[in-house]
Amino acid sequence: MSAGTLPFITFEGGEGAGKSTQLARLAARLEAAGVPHLLTKEPGGTAAGDQIRATLLDPALDIDPLAEFLLYSASRAQLVREVLQPALERGELVVCDRYADSTLAYQGYGRGLPLPFLQAVTAEATGGLTPALTVLLDLDPAVGLARVAQRGQADRLERADLDFHRRLRAGFLALAEQQPQRWLVLDAGRSADELEEAIWARVQVTLDTAD
Amino acid sequence: MSAGTLPFITFEGGEGAGKSTQLARLAARLEAAGVPHLLTKEPGGTAAGDQIRATLLDPALDIDPLAEFLLYSASRAQLVREVLQPALERGELVVCDRYADSTLAYQGYGRGLPLPFLQAVTAEATGGLTPALTVLLDLDPAVGLARVAQRGQADRLERADLDFHRRLRAGFLALAEQQPQRWLVLDAGRSADELEEAIWARVQVTLDTAD
Repeated sequence: MSAGTLPFITFEGGEGAGKSTQLARLAARLEAAGVPHLLTKEPGGTAAGDQIRATLLDPALDIDPLAEFLLYSASRAQLVREVLQPALERGELVVCDRYADSTLAYQGYGRGLPLPFLQAVTAEATGGLTPALTVLLDLDPAVGLARVAQRGQADRLERADLDFHRRLRAGFLALAEQQPQRWLVLDAGRSADELEEAIWARVQVTLDTAD
Repeated sequence: MSAGTLPFITFEGGEGAGKSTQLARLAARLEAAGVPHLLTKEPGGTAAGDQIRATLLDPALDIDPLAEFLLYSASRAQLVREVLQPALERGELVVCDRYADSTLAYQGYGRGLPLPFLQAVTAEATGGLTPALTVLLDLDPAVGLARVAQRGQADRLERADLDFHRRLRAGFLALAEQQPQRWLVLDAGRSADELEEAIWARVQVTLDTAD
């Protein structure tokens, strides 16, 4: 595969859907297949972004929804220019744990900010960089939040109410329906092994197409 | 004066123009005159905003201009909703050290980001809250930066090059020319006493108008 031909892939989903597990498994598969790749995440992934992430996830802060959206967008603008674009230009496959779709789902469908405004700012923040493939690990939020509670983890976002999480699940599914060719929607209630196989099969197709 | 009638006043200017001195003197005048008031600043002025300010002014970080703009806008969205609007609704005069015009001057005229995009995001971030009076302490950046160097202070913004500071001075003056009724442009090379008198005279006019 020549430089500049490998795809940009994102993972989306609510809390407790198993993104971390599947991201690690995909990275291991890419490693074993000898595909040069970079695994990163939002918010964060840069020195500035990590500070923004700490602000966003600080449970002591009561952040206004619009300010929250602008912070996610700032972290994204930095990540795209400092990490994502350079890696893609070096010819690496890039996998990002959450990206612009999370903002549309959380701040748009979840918190009710107007989607056209979010999309206009997101278009600038991403500089037009759109994933070739977005994997959605879809799960009933009641199940996902119970998983998170069992792990004993609960940051500010995860403590928001169940209705909010239902709205953002519906948001992810609405986004997937608008661009079905880009999204792979998987039932995150399936076993980790089954999910791994389904994701790897689709990534291989994406690699062949990009080749 | 009844509640809700006192104005929102902002101070703008380049580095070393003497904003801090004049803000303190205006606050003392308002105190002596018995005018209920709140003095705050951008970026910062809230718990979340202070964290954003620390990120913005961290000399170890190399922040992309668009990310920088979005961080300023996030801090502003939080300040407007958490501090400025509530204080104005309580019937206080509000004085803010920097506001939206700084963003247009620094990120627009200074860093070259497109003004229509900056203005669209700023309109959302401010929720339409515009100052009744903006005091511009105008100074040749060569003089201002020499003052800052003497104080031994130099954060990330202040270390930017002289050309940048010339562009932002021209930006402030262009903004003032577009809305002359809102701006009081003062030569910051005048004595602190003279500046204090000029500002206080204009604030009294603004108070009478708002009354």
